Amino acid sequence: MSQEFESDSNVSNESLRPPDKLKPKKDFPWFGIDVGGTLVKLVYFEPLDLSKEEETKEGDILRTIRHYLVGNTAYGDTGVRDVDLEIKSTRIGDRLGNLHFIRFPTNQMENFIDLCVKRKFYQLCFQVYATGGGAFKFESVVSQNLNLNWVKCDELDMLIQGVEFLNKINNQNECYHFNIEAKRVLDKSPTNSMHFDSVLSSSCNSESLSTSVSSSASGTSSDPDYTTCPLTKCNFTKQSHAFKNTYPYILVNIGSGVSVLLVRSENDYKRVSGSSIGGGTFLGLCCLLTGCNTYEEAIDLATKGDSTKVDKLVRDIYGGDYSKFSLPGDIVASSFGNMNIGEKRQEATREDLARATLQTILNNVGLIARDCAKNYKCERVMFVGTFLRLNGLSKHLLAYATNYWSKGTIKALFLEHEGYFGAIGCLKNFVNRTEMDEQNL
Amino acid sequence: MSQEFESDSNVSNESLRPPDKLKPKKDFPWFGIDVGGTLVKLVYFEPLDLSKEEETKEGDILRTIRHYLVGNTAYGDTGVRDVDLEIKSTRIGDRLGNLHFIRFPTNQMENFIDLCVKRKFYQLCFQVYATGGGAFKFESVVSQNLNLNWVKCDELDMLIQGVEFLNKINNQNECYHFNIEAKRVLDKSPTNSMHFDSVLSSSCNSESLSTSVSSSASGTSSDPDYTTCPLTKCNFTKQSHAFKNTYPYILVNIGSGVSVLLVRSENDYKRVSGSSIGGGTFLGLCCLLTGCNTYEEAIDLATKGDSTKVDKLVRDIYGGDYSKFSLPGDIVASSFGNMNIGEKRQEATREDLARATLQTILNNVGLIARDCAKNYKCERVMFVGTFLRLNGLSKHLLAYATNYWSKGTIKALFLEHEGYFGAIGCLKNFVNRTEMDEQNL
Repeated sequence: MSQEFESDSNVSNESLRPPDKLKPKKDFPWFGIDVGGTLVKLVYFEPLDLSKEEETKEGDILRTIRHYLVGNTAYGDTGVRDVDLEIKSTRIGDRLGNLHFIRFPTNQMENFIDLCVKRKFYQLCFQVYATGGGAFKFESVVSQNLNLNWVKCDELDMLIQGVEFLNKINNQNECYHFNIEAKRVLDKSPTNSMHFDSVLSSSCNSESLSTSVSSSASGTSSDPDYTTCPLTKCNFTKQSHAFKNTYPYILVNIGSGVSVLLVRSENDYKRVSGSSIGGGTFLGLCCLLTGCNTYEEAIDLATKGDSTKVDKLVRDIYGGDYSKFSLPGDIVASSFGNMNIGEKRQEATREDLARATLQTILNNVGLIARDCAKNYKCERVMFVGTFLRLNGLSKHLLAYATNYWSKGTIKALFLEHEGYFGAIGCLKNFVNRTEMDEQNL
Repeated sequence: MSQEFESDSNVSNESLRPPDKLKPKKDFPWFGIDVGGTLVKLVYFEPLDLSKEEETKEGDILRTIRHYLVGNTAYGDTGVRDVDLEIKSTRIGDRLGNLHFIRFPTNQMENFIDLCVKRKFYQLCFQVYATGGGAFKFESVVSQNLNLNWVKCDELDMLIQGVEFLNKINNQNECYHFNIEAKRVLDKSPTNSMHFDSVLSSSCNSESLSTSVSSSASGTSSDPDYTTCPLTKCNFTKQSHAFKNTYPYILVNIGSGVSVLLVRSENDYKRVSGSSIGGGTFLGLCCLLTGCNTYEEAIDLATKGDSTKVDKLVRDIYGGDYSKFSLPGDIVASSFGNMNIGEKRQEATREDLARATLQTILNNVGLIARDCAKNYKCERVMFVGTFLRLNGLSKHLLAYATNYWSKGTIKALFLEHEGYFGAIGCLKNFVNRTEMDEQNL
């Protein structure tokens, strides 16, 4: 199966056009769709090698779709094409094309279907593989309004297969980790916008980070450097990771909620844990606590905040470290644990509350991931999901924490197409499955 | 060591008064103190068998303390003696007395020390075993103001020993579980104040609860019975549990934060997990989200609320169950996951927000506990900590959830003296340790 997908960005369209007899049975358009709890993720394969016969067969409606999708980067008020994620001139199912990544809020799903009706898509009969909860929830609305063959796929199957697939077609460009090194000259600026003082981090344990250890380990609450964030003292260098050496690994999908899978191979995985405290919790709580309205706004607030004003730290309880269990003083003992005190509530800004919300959720995801990695003896944890979009801070926090808490034995991995793997898994299955397979679905 | 502690409530004081030569070396007063992140827990042993010589030696100041502590049930504005927890006429270290349980907020600790100074306690020199973070944090304030020998003890050691000890002296009255049975006649009342529709619960799996399964499993979002809480359809019968058959077990201590221990015997335990999302998070978030000020108020609000208005459920995403992974539709997919939608924020009441906060925290505690029990092959999870005080709802939720998610293979246990085990562990060590031991501490 893996041979059917190859990436090649340096060939002309003409030279790669397959002879007609090898063309796949699947008619265009080629979509994969993942209707999640918060966002709909859509991948669209734009063929570059259409024969004249195919262009004629395509007709006006499909041509309009194609031009509309690839000619725009925004659709209505809420749809977005992630242009930076586009994979150009790739081969899928013996066809050459560009792979596009589009998203819009799930609460716009019914408007999206209305739009399809207005644009006369209902006159077309084609097949779409769909996953995510919405593949089930919206099935009847889709079938009542459109003439689609809507093939529902399990979201975790699609996720795993999507991860595999995109790593193959995007080769060395998909998977990466961070090399974390202490900065040579410590930044003594007073900013605390990147404080990193939660259970995820506290002090540093690797030798290269010993400068920040000492300030933390010896600090007291009156030491102004005590809570200074290790992130500001570290350089995070993004580095490509060869995916093929990754098995077994723990896959942590942070969407509205969190799913944790143990992946032994593409066809051998199981769901080992999960949590309802995920990206939806972050956004929901931020909206309640700060009055913000969007994910982008919430992340922006969090980046500027200081969670130590909101959380109760080990040192707030112990006056310093809890040495017997190696818990440094600047670890969070109780998330939001200072907010029962009126005076501290007054002092906490919107930014601080957003940051504390982010830290709380990442603490928990990090903890569950680490426990699973430990229990299943995995050296790698891969973090994916739309929650990581535009969220460099969270990725740095997760990378740092994974390294810190595992004493360097577990590596955090990330993927470029964070939230699109379910949709990609659908596209792959759409292309690969024969009609016989589908009858047995 | 266990032989030194015996409970006997049916003997006269006189007959049990030990001969002078067997009296322990420890002078009165006997205290154990646990200075936690939120509450100070104090246990006080009131001797009933004081000899005339001892009464003379005790002097006015100690006599005043004794009468003040046992003659009141409230101290100042915030101190409380939990009268219902008192253990009467028990024997500790060959002495007969009553065991009293007192608590006050940790933010009053310095006022408490001032009070001790005003009452001339500094003229006394006695020994106190102390645990919790505050044993460390307040050590210097105590030693500057009072003439105490303040012996700091590790909080997890004290917790484990306290659990053991109190189960011995309180015998069959300390440890209990709930028998959960479906009510014979289903309550069709429209109240939703006890909705039980989180990842902790959803539908019921035991045969005796099949009536509530069917309504849940076949429900849709338009089915008015779909989210009806199994708690309202079940009877929870408290039943004594013989503690001696309990090893190995997972001990989950829910204080400001959460610690999870694997206990193989009194002297063989390890900390296997923990979370910063605990009782402090519940209270802190409730204060922020509802404007309440106390734990009692927050629990009261939560009891009346409906979390399904706040959380995003599996059925909100799937339209029903996620069958492949046996996730029923009324499980929480994303805590607070509906709160990014302005309209739903308007609809959510203070009670709903408090309930969602409680469910979020219990979901997480339940998840971590279950994973640990599974990983360490334990059939029992014991939940302790001050968070469970006055909190029958949480205990029912944890009991139900533990049974549900483990398919009946794991039992949830509870203890009467929920948050006092650290303090009791201190008292036990104070009485038992010889002076030689103390020099080696």
